[in-house]
Amino acid sequence: MKLWQKETGSKKEVESFTIGRDPEFDILLAPFDVLGSMAHAEMLSTIGLLTAEENEILQQGLKQIYIEIQNGDFKIDPGVEDVHSQVEFLLTERYGDVGKKLHSGRSRNDQVLVDLKLYYRNSIKELVEECTSLFDLLISLSEKHKNDLMPGYTHTQLAMPSSFGLWFSSFAEGLSEDMGLLKAAFDLANKNPLGSAAGYGSSFPLNRTMTTELLGFADLHHNVLNAQNSRGKTERTLSFAMAGMAGTLNRLASDVCIFMNQHFAFIGFPDDLTTGSSIMPHKKNPDVFELIRAKTNQIQAIPNAIALLLTNTTTGYHRDLQLLKEDIFPGIETLKNCLRMTGFMLSSIKVKENILADPFYKHLFSVEVVNELVLKGTPFRDAYKQVGMDIESDNFAPDQLHLNHSHEGSIGNLNLQEIDEKMQNSIKLFNFKKIEQSFEDLLK
Amino acid sequence: MKLWQKETGSKKEVESFTIGRDPEFDILLAPFDVLGSMAHAEMLSTIGLLTAEENEILQQGLKQIYIEIQNGDFKIDPGVEDVHSQVEFLLTERYGDVGKKLHSGRSRNDQVLVDLKLYYRNSIKELVEECTSLFDLLISLSEKHKNDLMPGYTHTQLAMPSSFGLWFSSFAEGLSEDMGLLKAAFDLANKNPLGSAAGYGSSFPLNRTMTTELLGFADLHHNVLNAQNSRGKTERTLSFAMAGMAGTLNRLASDVCIFMNQHFAFIGFPDDLTTGSSIMPHKKNPDVFELIRAKTNQIQAIPNAIALLLTNTTTGYHRDLQLLKEDIFPGIETLKNCLRMTGFMLSSIKVKENILADPFYKHLFSVEVVNELVLKGTPFRDAYKQVGMDIESDNFAPDQLHLNHSHEGSIGNLNLQEIDEKMQNSIKLFNFKKIEQSFEDLLK
Amino acid sequence: MKLWQKETGSKKEVESFTIGRDPEFDILLAPFDVLGSMAHAEMLSTIGLLTAEENEILQQGLKQIYIEIQNGDFKIDPGVEDVHSQVEFLLTERYGDVGKKLHSGRSRNDQVLVDLKLYYRNSIKELVEECTSLFDLLISLSEKHKNDLMPGYTHTQLAMPSSFGLWFSSFAEGLSEDMGLLKAAFDLANKNPLGSAAGYGSSFPLNRTMTTELLGFADLHHNVLNAQNSRGKTERTLSFAMAGMAGTLNRLASDVCIFMNQHFAFIGFPDDLTTGSSIMPHKKNPDVFELIRAKTNQIQAIPNAIALLLTNTTTGYHRDLQLLKEDIFPGIETLKNCLRMTGFMLSSIKVKENILADPFYKHLFSVEVVNELVLKGTPFRDAYKQVGMDIESDNFAPDQLHLNHSHEGSIGNLNLQEIDEKMQNSIKLFNFKKIEQSFEDLLK
Amino acid sequence: MKLWQKETGSKKEVESFTIGRDPEFDILLAPFDVLGSMAHAEMLSTIGLLTAEENEILQQGLKQIYIEIQNGDFKIDPGVEDVHSQVEFLLTERYGDVGKKLHSGRSRNDQVLVDLKLYYRNSIKELVEECTSLFDLLISLSEKHKNDLMPGYTHTQLAMPSSFGLWFSSFAEGLSEDMGLLKAAFDLANKNPLGSAAGYGSSFPLNRTMTTELLGFADLHHNVLNAQNSRGKTERTLSFAMAGMAGTLNRLASDVCIFMNQHFAFIGFPDDLTTGSSIMPHKKNPDVFELIRAKTNQIQAIPNAIALLLTNTTTGYHRDLQLLKEDIFPGIETLKNCLRMTGFMLSSIKVKENILADPFYKHLFSVEVVNELVLKGTPFRDAYKQVGMDIESDNFAPDQLHLNHSHEGSIGNLNLQEIDEKMQNSIKLFNFKKIEQSFEDLLK
Repeated sequence: MKLWQKETGSKKEVESFTIGRDPEFDILLAPFDVLGSMAHAEMLSTIGLLTAEENEILQQGLKQIYIEIQNGDFKIDPGVEDVHSQVEFLLTERYGDVGKKLHSGRSRNDQVLVDLKLYYRNSIKELVEECTSLFDLLISLSEKHKNDLMPGYTHTQLAMPSSFGLWFSSFAEGLSEDMGLLKAAFDLANKNPLGSAAGYGSSFPLNRTMTTELLGFADLHHNVLNAQNSRGKTERTLSFAMAGMAGTLNRLASDVCIFMNQHFAFIGFPDDLTTGSSIMPHKKNPDVFELIRAKTNQIQAIPNAIALLLTNTTTGYHRDLQLLKEDIFPGIETLKNCLRMTGFMLSSIKVKENILADPFYKHLFSVEVVNELVLKGTPFRDAYKQVGMDIESDNFAPDQLHLNHSHEGSIGNLNLQEIDEKMQNSIKLFNFKKIEQSFEDLLK
Repeated sequence: MKLWQKETGSKKEVESFTIGRDPEFDILLAPFDVLGSMAHAEMLSTIGLLTAEENEILQQGLKQIYIEIQNGDFKIDPGVEDVHSQVEFLLTERYGDVGKKLHSGRSRNDQVLVDLKLYYRNSIKELVEECTSLFDLLISLSEKHKNDLMPGYTHTQLAMPSSFGLWFSSFAEGLSEDMGLLKAAFDLANKNPLGSAAGYGSSFPLNRTMTTELLGFADLHHNVLNAQNSRGKTERTLSFAMAGMAGTLNRLASDVCIFMNQHFAFIGFPDDLTTGSSIMPHKKNPDVFELIRAKTNQIQAIPNAIALLLTNTTTGYHRDLQLLKEDIFPGIETLKNCLRMTGFMLSSIKVKENILADPFYKHLFSVEVVNELVLKGTPFRDAYKQVGMDIESDNFAPDQLHLNHSHEGSIGNLNLQEIDEKMQNSIKLFNFKKIEQSFEDLLK
Repeated sequence: MKLWQKETGSKKEVESFTIGRDPEFDILLAPFDVLGSMAHAEMLSTIGLLTAEENEILQQGLKQIYIEIQNGDFKIDPGVEDVHSQVEFLLTERYGDVGKKLHSGRSRNDQVLVDLKLYYRNSIKELVEECTSLFDLLISLSEKHKNDLMPGYTHTQLAMPSSFGLWFSSFAEGLSEDMGLLKAAFDLANKNPLGSAAGYGSSFPLNRTMTTELLGFADLHHNVLNAQNSRGKTERTLSFAMAGMAGTLNRLASDVCIFMNQHFAFIGFPDDLTTGSSIMPHKKNPDVFELIRAKTNQIQAIPNAIALLLTNTTTGYHRDLQLLKEDIFPGIETLKNCLRMTGFMLSSIKVKENILADPFYKHLFSVEVVNELVLKGTPFRDAYKQVGMDIESDNFAPDQLHLNHSHEGSIGNLNLQEIDEKMQNSIKLFNFKKIEQSFEDLLK
Repeated sequence: MKLWQKETGSKKEVESFTIGRDPEFDILLAPFDVLGSMAHAEMLSTIGLLTAEENEILQQGLKQIYIEIQNGDFKIDPGVEDVHSQVEFLLTERYGDVGKKLHSGRSRNDQVLVDLKLYYRNSIKELVEECTSLFDLLISLSEKHKNDLMPGYTHTQLAMPSSFGLWFSSFAEGLSEDMGLLKAAFDLANKNPLGSAAGYGSSFPLNRTMTTELLGFADLHHNVLNAQNSRGKTERTLSFAMAGMAGTLNRLASDVCIFMNQHFAFIGFPDDLTTGSSIMPHKKNPDVFELIRAKTNQIQAIPNAIALLLTNTTTGYHRDLQLLKEDIFPGIETLKNCLRMTGFMLSSIKVKENILADPFYKHLFSVEVVNELVLKGTPFRDAYKQVGMDIESDNFAPDQLHLNHSHEGSIGNLNLQEIDEKMQNSIKLFNFKKIEQSFEDLLK
C-alpha cells in the first residue's frame, strides 16, 4: 500500500512491475533516509511547520530508527512500498500524527534525491579507502621490486628494458590520477537537493541553506529544476569516475593474464589462488584476474547504460530514473570487490628474477646503444641507422646488465615519494572529516 | 617516406591503410608540435645534447615555422608521413644536421603525446569559453523572463507552476556544474609526458621538470609507463567531460522540441531560423534543436567508442591508439558548434506570456492549496486527501495568479547571483593565464 | 568443492569472487544440462565408451533428475560448485562409478556451451510466444480503431492525418520484422557445440552428428575452435535481437507517454493502472510505460556490455565469458516482462474519438488539398505554393471529415491481413516443433 | 536554396549547421536516387499523374543523369541543398515543368528512405563479396596448414594441441555464420518504403506493389508509419551485422598480434608489410593488425551510437535521423577495408613449422594421455588425477608427434567442405541476381 494513495488501488501486476528491484536497493538507503529526515525536521521547526516539541519527538524517533538500522533490526514490512514509507509508518505508529507532518515541504522526489546523494557520497568514501589500500600496496611492491628488470613492450613487441618497480608504480600513479574524476563525482554528490520538492520547489518558506549545513553538504543545487536534473547527472558522473578506475584495473589485470602465460612466465601466484581445469590437469589459470578484467568491463559499460536511460528525455522527473539504481548500485559493490581482490592477489605475487640476463632479450638494449653513440657525438638519425644495420647483420651484442636511467620517473629514479604525495594531496581535497562531523552532530 | 625508415619500404596498401585520417588531424597539432620541440630543445641544451648555438638555431627555426603555421603557410608535403616529420624535414632542409639532433632523448610516442596534451588543453579552453557565453545568455534570459510562468511537468504530466526564469537558469547552473568534469579532464591534459619516450624513459639525463615548466604544465606524469598509459586515459576523461556537457545540451534541446510543438506552443523562433517541409506548407520545424539533440548523442557515444578501443589491452603503446583522434577530434568541434548554435538560437527565442492564466492549468496549483491548508494547521496527509477529493469532484478553483515561492532557488528567488559566482569560481580554477604566459615566454 | 579438484584448494576469497552470481543462473540451466548429458551418454555408448548397461543406468538416472527439476525438487547443495557438478554428484551418489564416466569426451566448456545453447533456444521460443500475443492484440486494436483518426507528427510538429489503426498496426508490423534478427540469433543458438571439449576437440572418436540430431539442433559448429568462439557470439547475436525488439517497444512506450500528456490527451488507462503522486493529488502518471521505456533501454545497453567483455581478447576460452550470463539472463526476463506488460496495459487502453474534427487540426489537411489541386492538373510545386500562401494569409479551410487514402498500408487500407501473414511466415521458419519432438524422444 | 522553399529564407548559420556532412554522403546516393525516381515515374504514369509522354521524357532524362553519375560527370551545384534537389533541378532545367511533376505522391522522407534502402542493399552485396574472398583464402590456408600443429590456449594458458588448419578455418566458419545477421539486415533493407510519403501515406492512388517490383525489392513495408520507423531500424540492424563481422575480425587480429610477439613467434609477415620504430631499430610491428583491431572496435561502437540517436524518441520523422549517415556510411567503408586488408596480409603470412616438437609443450598432451587411459578402461576422473600427479612430480613424458583426432571439426578432420557448403548456402539466400535484373530492366 502506498502512503499517499487515494481510494483507487492499482492492480497487482502494475505494483509488481513498477516496484522491481527497489526493495533490495532501498535497504541501503535507510540510514541516509533517516539522517535526511532529521535535518528536514530540524529545519521545519525553525520555520513554524513543526513545534519544538514535535521536532524533539521526531528527532528522538528517527534516532531510534537509525539505531535499529545499524543493529540490523530494520526491515521493510510486506505491503509497504519503500524505505521512505516504512520510516514514516514507524514514526506514525509510534508517535501518532506528528509522523505525518514530516512530509511537509518535501516531495518523494527530493527525499529520494537526498538519500541518494548521501549514499553516493558515502560510497565514494569507501571507494577512496579501497583505492588507498591498493595504492599503498603498489607503492611498496614497486619499492621492493625496483631492481627487478623486465622487458617493456610496444605493439606487444619487445621494445626496451623496463622493471617491475616501474610496472607496479605505473598503476599507483594511475590510481592517484583516477581521483580527479572521483572528486568531480563527489562534488556533484555533495550538493544538497532538499527543498527542490518535485523539481519546482515549495511555497513553504524552507531554509535550504540550513539543511545544507546540517547534512554536511559543501553546497546546494540552487535552482530547484537543476536539483531535479541532478538525478541522473550525479549517477552519470559517478559512473564516469568508476569507469576510469575500472579502466586502470582492467589494464593491470590484462597485463597479469599475459605475464602469467607460460611463454612470458614473469609472475606467479600460490596454487591456492589459481584455478585448475576439469580436463587439463596441468593448468593453473588466472581466473581471478580474468574476472577482474571482465568485471571492470561491466563497470565500463555503466556510463552508456545511463546515457541510454537519460538521453532525449525532457526536464522533470520521469519514472525511468528509478532504474538508475539497478545500474549503479551493483557497480559500486563490484568495483570495491575488484579493488580489494586486486590487492588480495598482488600481496601474494611472485616475481621472476634476472629475466633480462637472457640473450633472448638483447634487442631491448638497442636504444641504449643508440643513445651511447649520441652521447659520443653521433647524430641521432645516424646512430639509429647504424644500430639497425648491426641488428640486421646479427652483430649486435650490448651490455645487458648496466642501465643508466636517471631522469624523473624512469626505472632508475621511480619518484615513489612524489607519486605518494600526489595521492595524499588528492585525498585531502575530499574532506571526509566534515561529513563525519555533521552526522555525529545530527545524531548526538 | 618515413624519417626513421630503414632500407625496406612498406607496400603502398599498408601505407594508405595505416595513415588513415591522420593528415587531416595532424595539421591541428602543428603549432603544438613546434612549441613542444622548442621546450625539448631548450632542455637538451642544458644537458649537453645540444650546444647553445645549435639550440639558438633550432629555437629561431621553430619560431619561424610557428609563424608560418599561424599564417596558414604550413602544409604536410606529399610523401611526408606526418606533421612531426614535416617539421623535422623543414629544419634539416633549412639548417642541416642540427635538425636531426632534435629527436635525441624523445620518441615519436612522447612527442605525439605532448602535442595531444597541448591540443586538448587548448580545446578545453575553447570549450570553457563557448560554455561561458552560453551561460551568460542563459542567466540574462532567466532574469528577463523571471516572471513568465509556465507549467512544470513530472512524468511528462502537468505538475506544478514553473517559470521560464527557472527553466533558463536550470541549464545555467547545469553548465556551471559541468565544469567539474572538464576540470578533471584539464588536470589530466595538463601533465607533462615528455621524457617518457616510448613509455620506458630514456638513458639520457633528461630534465623533465624543466620541460614541464617551459610548457606551462601544472605537473608531470612522473612514472614514464603511466605517462604512456595516459594516452587513451586523457581522451577518455575528456570524452566524459564532453558527454556531460552534451547531456545538458541534449535535455535543453529535447525541451525546446516539445515546447515548440503546437499543443504546447510555449516558445517560438523567427521563421528564418526554422525549417519548412517539402510536402507540408504549414510546417515550422525545430531542425536546429533536433540536430543539437542528435549531435549531443553522437558526443555521448564517444566514451564508449574509446572504451572499446582501450579495454582488454596491455600496458605499452599499441597502434590502436592512433584512432583515438578520429573519435575525439571531430567531437570537440561538434560540441563547440552545439554550444554556439544553442546560444545563437536562444538569443532569438520568443516566449509566450500569461500561459498559466488559462483554467486548463488550474490543477497545477493543487500543491499550493495543500500547502496553504498545512500552514493553517491541517496535517499534510489530510490536506493532500482533501484537495484530491475536490479535484475528483471538480470543485477545485485555485487562485492562479499569486504564488509565494521564496526559498533559495525557487521561482520567486532564482539565486542568479549565486549561480553566477559558482561559474566564475569554477573557471578561475583552470588558470588559463599561466598557459598563455608560458607560450609567450617560449615564443618571445 | 570442485569435482575435478586436485589436492591444493583455493582460498575462500577466491572461491567467493569467482563463483559470483552463477548459482542463481545455473538453476535455469539444470533441465538443459540433463538433456545434454542424456544425448552425450547415448552417443558415448555407440563408440564404446559406455556399455549399453551403463548407458541405460545413466539415461534412467538423468531422467529421474529431470523429473526432480520439473517438480522443483532439485537444488545445488552447499559446497557444490555448479549445476553440472551437482548432476554428476547425484549420479555418482546414486549409481556409483558409472556417474564419473559421463564426463568422458567432453570438457566443462562444451558442457556449459550446450546447456547455454539449449537455454537460449528455449528463451527465444518464449520471446516469440510473448511477441505473438502482443502482435495479435495490436492487430485487433488496429482493426477496432481503424476509423479513429489522430494527428500524425513529423519533427514533433503536427503534420498530416493519421489514425489509431495505423499507429497500432505500425508496431504490429514492426514486431513481425523484429523476427528477422531473432531468427538469426536462433540459428546460432541452434548449432551443436558438443564435442568441441575445451575448444580443441577430443582424441575420442566422438560422433557429433549424432548428438546434433538427438538434441534437435539444426546443424553443428563444425570447427571446434569456432564452436568455442560461439560462446559470446551467440550471446551477442541474441542481445542484438533483443535490442531490436526493445527498440520497437521503446518507441511505443515513448508515444504512449506523450499521448497521455494533458496537452495531447489522446489516450487513457483505467485509474488502477496509472500511478498517483505523493505531493500532487491530480496526477495520473504513466509509470508502467515510463518503466517499459527505461527497461528497454537497459536491454539496448546489453550489446555494448557484451562487446566490452569480448573485444580485443584472443581465441580460446577465458573466464571472462562467465559474466555473459549476468548480462543476458536478466535481460531475457526483462524483455519478456516488457512484452507482457505492454499487452496487459494496451488491452485496457481508451482512445479519444473525433480528435481531428477540431479546427485546431486544420493544417494537417494541407497536403490533401495540395494533392486535390494536383489531381485537377496543377503542377505539384505550384499547388504547394498556393496552399502555403492560403495558410499564411489564414484563408485555409479544408474539409476535415473526408479522407481518401487507398494505397497499400495507408490509413484507408491498413493491409492487416498481409501483415499477419508476414508474422505467421516468420514464425514458421523457427520450426519449434522439431525441438519439442527431439526432447520428447530423449525423455520417452 | 531549397526547392520547396517559401519566401522566408533561413539564416546561413542555420543552413551550414543543418546541412552538415550531407553533401559528402549524398553523392553516394545519387545513382539510387535516379533509379528510385525512374520507378516512381513509371508508377505515376499508370495512375494518371503523368502522361505516357511525360513519363517517357522523365525516363530518358533520368537515364541520362544515371549515365552522367556513372561517368563521374555529376555533382551537386553550389547552393543546391542535396542530391535529390540536384536531380530535380537538372530535369526541370532540361525538360521544363515535367520535372516538377516527379515529386507528386512522394515526400522527401520516402524519397530519401528508398535511396538509403537501395544503397544499403548494394553495400551489403559488397560486404558479402569481400567476405567471400577472405573466406576462400582462409579455407585454402587451412587446407595448406592442416598438418602444422600449434598450441591451443584456454585462459591464455597452454592447454591442448591445436593446428593452424583449425585456426584458419575457425574464422572461415565464423564468417559463414556472420552471414545470418547480414541476411537479417538485407531483408530489412530489401523492403520498399516508397509511397509512405512523410510517414502517413498519400491521398493519391499510388501503386506501391508496382514500385516494389520495379526496384527488385523482395517485399514492401506495408504500414506507412512502420515504413517511416524503418529509418533507423534498418541502420541499427545493419550496424548489428557489421559489428558481428567486426567481432570476428577483431579476434583474428588479436590473435595475430599475440602470435607475432617474440615469445610466441608462431607467424610472421614480409618486412615490407610490417612497420619499424622511430627509436628502436629492431622492431617489426604488426601495425596493420593493430589497426584492424582498432577499426573493428570503431565498427562495434556503431550500434550504440545509433541506439543513442533513436531511443526515447516518438513515432514520426525527426531531423535527428539525418545523422545516421555519419555513423553508418563511413563504417561500411571501414569494414570493407578491414576485410580486404585482412586478406591482403594473410595472403603473405609465414607459419612456423614443428612448433609442438619442443618439450616446452609437453603438457599440452595431458588430455591425450588421460583419454588413452580412459580408452583402456580407467574412469575419467581417476585418469585425470593420475596424470595430474605425474605432472606435479615431473614424470610426464607424452608422445608429442602422434595425434588421433578424428571427429567432425577436429584437427584431424577439419570439415572444410562442409564449412564451404555452409557459406555457399548462406550466400544463395541473398538472391543478388534479382536485384541486378531489376536494375537492368529499369535502365534498358
